[in-house]
Amino acid sequence: VHRTAVKKVVLEGVLDANDALAQANREKFDEAGTYVINLMSSPGAGKTSLLEHTLERMRGRLRLGVLEGDVQTTLDADRLARFHVPLVQVNTDPGFGGECHLDANMVRSGLSELPLHEMDILVIENVGNLVCPAEFRVGEDARVMVYSVTEGEEKPLKYPLMFRSADLVVVNKVDLLEHLDFDLEQFLGHLDTVNPGVERILTSARTGQGVDEWCSWLERRRGPSH
Amino acid sequence: VHRTAVKKVVLEGVLDANDALAQANREKFDEAGTYVINLMSSPGAGKTSLLEHTLERMRGRLRLGVLEGDVQTTLDADRLARFHVPLVQVNTDPGFGGECHLDANMVRSGLSELPLHEMDILVIENVGNLVCPAEFRVGEDARVMVYSVTEGEEKPLKYPLMFRSADLVVVNKVDLLEHLDFDLEQFLGHLDTVNPGVERILTSARTGQGVDEWCSWLERRRGPSH
Repeated sequence: VHRTAVKKVVLEGVLDANDALAQANREKFDEAGTYVINLMSSPGAGKTSLLEHTLERMRGRLRLGVLEGDVQTTLDADRLARFHVPLVQVNTDPGFGGECHLDANMVRSGLSELPLHEMDILVIENVGNLVCPAEFRVGEDARVMVYSVTEGEEKPLKYPLMFRSADLVVVNKVDLLEHLDFDLEQFLGHLDTVNPGVERILTSARTGQGVDEWCSWLERRRGPSH
Repeated sequence: VHRTAVKKVVLEGVLDANDALAQANREKFDEAGTYVINLMSSPGAGKTSLLEHTLERMRGRLRLGVLEGDVQTTLDADRLARFHVPLVQVNTDPGFGGECHLDANMVRSGLSELPLHEMDILVIENVGNLVCPAEFRVGEDARVMVYSVTEGEEKPLKYPLMFRSADLVVVNKVDLLEHLDFDLEQFLGHLDTVNPGVERILTSARTGQGVDEWCSWLERRRGPSH
């Protein structure tokens, strides 16, 4: 992850292996008819809270499952266990210092614990990190990014890769807007600079605002054809 | 950054090179008599806002300089330029997908633009990321972590490496506590679980609360002997 020619060669090798494993995951998802979301954000942006709302509202509408990625602990999976959906936690700490992202191979390890054929949608909750997860495809159909308004307006410009690769940006914690100096229009302008016209939904995982719109998005994406 | 034996060997090689370069940086800092802070956090936790307060209050008390690390843009450096302190921006985007951290070699590149001999303290503002920056020493004297109360109570358990390696944790955005469900005592308990007794200062970069305490910490750390 540095600047010399040698290191670049190594990383290209790693990426190729990752892409091959992502393709293998993709084939499993297609065979099972499961639509797969790679859910990414900074730490604490509200991915798990959004999932809690989602699992609550989608009960009886779509069969969801969750693969939780974290450096350590099963805290997030524990929060979701009460919804009785297929759920697996992948911890990345056996790697070097704790891996900062999920890669295709880690997701592959988790898949063996999930009944894909019984799931319409699998949500992969990635490790909280605004940079590295965007560099690794895991075989997903769509990338959804959760962004908290507490993080400031300028992050799309400073960390463009994840914003650019997102199919949907969920702008979360909008219940706090009145207590912040956050300029929403400026943020959305920066977002359009790096990913013009990308879909966006304003939500508050605390109050439930926007969660219906997000669930409708999921249903449209999943489509009737699966 | 994966799990096979081959990859581990590569990463250990990278780390050794980084440690060697960190040692070279360390020698430069010692020779100049400059105390060096590696300032780390998630994206948007408030590092730059804290620095704005710091540069304002320390004017005439200590000679500060700043090395700004970001994937792209000079937005953070631009915010600090009005304080007329030695200031350099290092962008990590020439690397693979945008580097997610500063390493010793990137810091070394930036140092050539800074008059170390005219600086009592150099603050290195790392890339916003709760995982990777903690894995790379850059030659610093102390590691300071800024943590925003909007990020939730459980992060010390989920991302232990950075919390464990911090010499001081600045708990920021406490002006928002009344609008959040954040349990401060629980967070501090988790912090003590991974880094028992680590120093902590509660701040609001928005209202200025705690900034005096932080500046006093800096003066104590810098010490009279330099």
